[in-house]
Amino acid sequence: MKYVKHLRCTLCQKTFNPNHVSYTCPNCGIEGILEVEFDYSALKNVINTKALINSHDFSMWRYSPLLCIESTQNLSSMLKIGWTPLYRANRLNKSIGINELYIKDESANPSGSTKDRASGIAVIKALEQNASIIACSSTGNAASSLACHASRMGLKTVIFIPKRAPIGKVTQMSLYGATLVSVDGDYKSAYQLSKKAIEQHGWYNRNAAINPYLVEGKKTVALELAEQLNFSLTDWIVVSVGDGCTIAGLYKGFYDLFHLGLIKKIPHLLGVQSEGCAPFYQAYINDEPLQEALEDTIADSIAVGIPRNPIKAMNAVKNSHGSWIAISDILILNAMHTLGSSEGLFAEPAGAASLAGLQEALAKGIIKPDESATIIMTGNGLKDPKNAEKTMPPLKTIKDDLNSLNEYLNQKGVI
Amino acid sequence: MKYVKHLRCTLCQKTFNPNHVSYTCPNCGIEGILEVEFDYSALKNVINTKALINSHDFSMWRYSPLLCIESTQNLSSMLKIGWTPLYRANRLNKSIGINELYIKDESANPSGSTKDRASGIAVIKALEQNASIIACSSTGNAASSLACHASRMGLKTVIFIPKRAPIGKVTQMSLYGATLVSVDGDYKSAYQLSKKAIEQHGWYNRNAAINPYLVEGKKTVALELAEQLNFSLTDWIVVSVGDGCTIAGLYKGFYDLFHLGLIKKIPHLLGVQSEGCAPFYQAYINDEPLQEALEDTIADSIAVGIPRNPIKAMNAVKNSHGSWIAISDILILNAMHTLGSSEGLFAEPAGAASLAGLQEALAKGIIKPDESATIIMTGNGLKDPKNAEKTMPPLKTIKDDLNSLNEYLNQKGVI
Repeated sequence: MKYVKHLRCTLCQKTFNPNHVSYTCPNCGIEGILEVEFDYSALKNVINTKALINSHDFSMWRYSPLLCIESTQNLSSMLKIGWTPLYRANRLNKSIGINELYIKDESANPSGSTKDRASGIAVIKALEQNASIIACSSTGNAASSLACHASRMGLKTVIFIPKRAPIGKVTQMSLYGATLVSVDGDYKSAYQLSKKAIEQHGWYNRNAAINPYLVEGKKTVALELAEQLNFSLTDWIVVSVGDGCTIAGLYKGFYDLFHLGLIKKIPHLLGVQSEGCAPFYQAYINDEPLQEALEDTIADSIAVGIPRNPIKAMNAVKNSHGSWIAISDILILNAMHTLGSSEGLFAEPAGAASLAGLQEALAKGIIKPDESATIIMTGNGLKDPKNAEKTMPPLKTIKDDLNSLNEYLNQKGVI
Repeated sequence: MKYVKHLRCTLCQKTFNPNHVSYTCPNCGIEGILEVEFDYSALKNVINTKALINSHDFSMWRYSPLLCIESTQNLSSMLKIGWTPLYRANRLNKSIGINELYIKDESANPSGSTKDRASGIAVIKALEQNASIIACSSTGNAASSLACHASRMGLKTVIFIPKRAPIGKVTQMSLYGATLVSVDGDYKSAYQLSKKAIEQHGWYNRNAAINPYLVEGKKTVALELAEQLNFSLTDWIVVSVGDGCTIAGLYKGFYDLFHLGLIKKIPHLLGVQSEGCAPFYQAYINDEPLQEALEDTIADSIAVGIPRNPIKAMNAVKNSHGSWIAISDILILNAMHTLGSSEGLFAEPAGAASLAGLQEALAKGIIKPDESATIIMTGNGLKDPKNAEKTMPPLKTIKDDLNSLNEYLNQKGVI
């Protein structure tokens, strides 16, 4: 934590010594999410273009001085997180009508989503504190990601899931050796029980919003984007939003880069929500406080009715002069097919929502055709085959002869 | 094709100019699989330790002089194939009783399997020949991989599948925009119809065994392994075998490295088959020609009753002084769980079969505890959630209170 000045409460603005506080603000409680503040003048000596060019570490740990970790000794034993590919669109920019388009492929992370960046930090921090168990409540990518990296480093994980958790989602966690606690109740019950158990047993807590260091892991997406584009970022960065941690992390990354003198301005952030669960979008449009929303969308990774990182997420859009948008499930399914069939990229619904959001923002004039954008593809489509199936046209079986085949291909416009 | 001397038929040993032959030997027909032979003395000027250290291309294309392609102009537009992580086991080596163990994580490729390396070549060769359509018959990773990379490069794909093809497997291909031809018949019918159509329309053919350049793509796994281990390879390389193309590719890669003076000996190859479909293993054990086998295994990616690359695969094991082994589906499921829970890696059954094979080879004394091995994890576990589910213990729901929780965790040995 050499370069950390202090932790600042996003509510009361008081600052705290990181050695005295573990998770949220002692004054404001669970709502008092803390923000890490760095000593940028000291950081400039270790994070600069020369140091980055000479780095041979092609993972998120190339930015370790910016990651609030005590030591680098465990990093080489970790699975490779980060430095995911950034693709320039070959055709998609033209078909959707934007000058320049990039896609950050987070599906290439070990457990298939951008959550690996936060879980990597959680595992390293748990090892620093000699904790042997990490816990979280989640039915999705955060939990499977945690189970993945904890397994690799020999730590146990206890994952709290509601009774109704879909079996497909919990399979991955179980395979990584997590102890699954299926709680007789809904998601809130699972969360509350995890909170009590974490307090009782002193386990390390990987509930993303309340742990100030996890967002620091997520910001490495922004750091990589900047470096991969030679510090000349696109006008817009587009990402889907659930809890708010990923967009908060992106903003934090750009904020760091700006204060390190590596970029001249922070790009606009477009936060994309599903119409079926859009608390941030509603609050923005109606200019009112965040209200609990229904969770009615196929994009389960962003189906968060009560976002746990609201202030950082709202600030990310506001301070970057960005915007919020909401799109329907139909548009998300279309975007999944478009990404796959025009660029060869297979995203889960929340991963393709960024493309759907960009298309909608272009249609509404929020983003202009002569601007440039990067969409964050947050998760692998293989995680959700059921929704991918919905994008398939009906499969017609043809007779086993060339005439039938050619007639069929003719109809399809292939020959 | 600057460094290609000629193509040699693996049956009649005659050599051919690559400009005069497209796929198999003109004399021997479909059985006459061709092998690429290189001018190694010329290659030594471009593939050597210095050139590799200075290369900034962290993908399979860092070895492009060894890949039989005419030009490098399209490579930067491709999705990132290869340079997948090589992990040293943190704990698994001890638990299975081997001195040193590495895992090559091919699940990190864009479509989630090692087939991307062959598909990458197919797409580049199709572009070279100005073909706008590539075809293959497959229900699995080869087809989805082809559809993925063809989509990225703006090529059309026609995939022939049997009527009974499982919907989960074809979803990925469809999402990548492939035209699916569901043939009223079995796999052989689909293959035969694809063959006729390819001949009639002059499409590029991505049926792996008969296309001599695809194995060259697959060999990049071996080239990377060597470089990632500083040209000091493990005693054994363990890989599951279906058609035989991957193990043939591995051997070819080591053969190239040996003739380039980059490694001093070729490691032993252990070919792993499932007991439910083990034509290579049976032929080896009984010292008889390969016979058609049933396809009764959960490891669908290696369920190949009539392997289409038998000679190269048999030679790979024989010439490397390796061995063959067969393991049950139960051992494969156990290996999936072991890989996940001890190293955080999620493999599909064919990907975990290599670990099961290594364990069996250790039990049988084929591989000794003081030796070292690398297992190739050929495909992502997310591709086959149904089989992963079989590794899950039954999920017991507990009451929403701390006492019930602690009793449960106590039973599980967590606290």
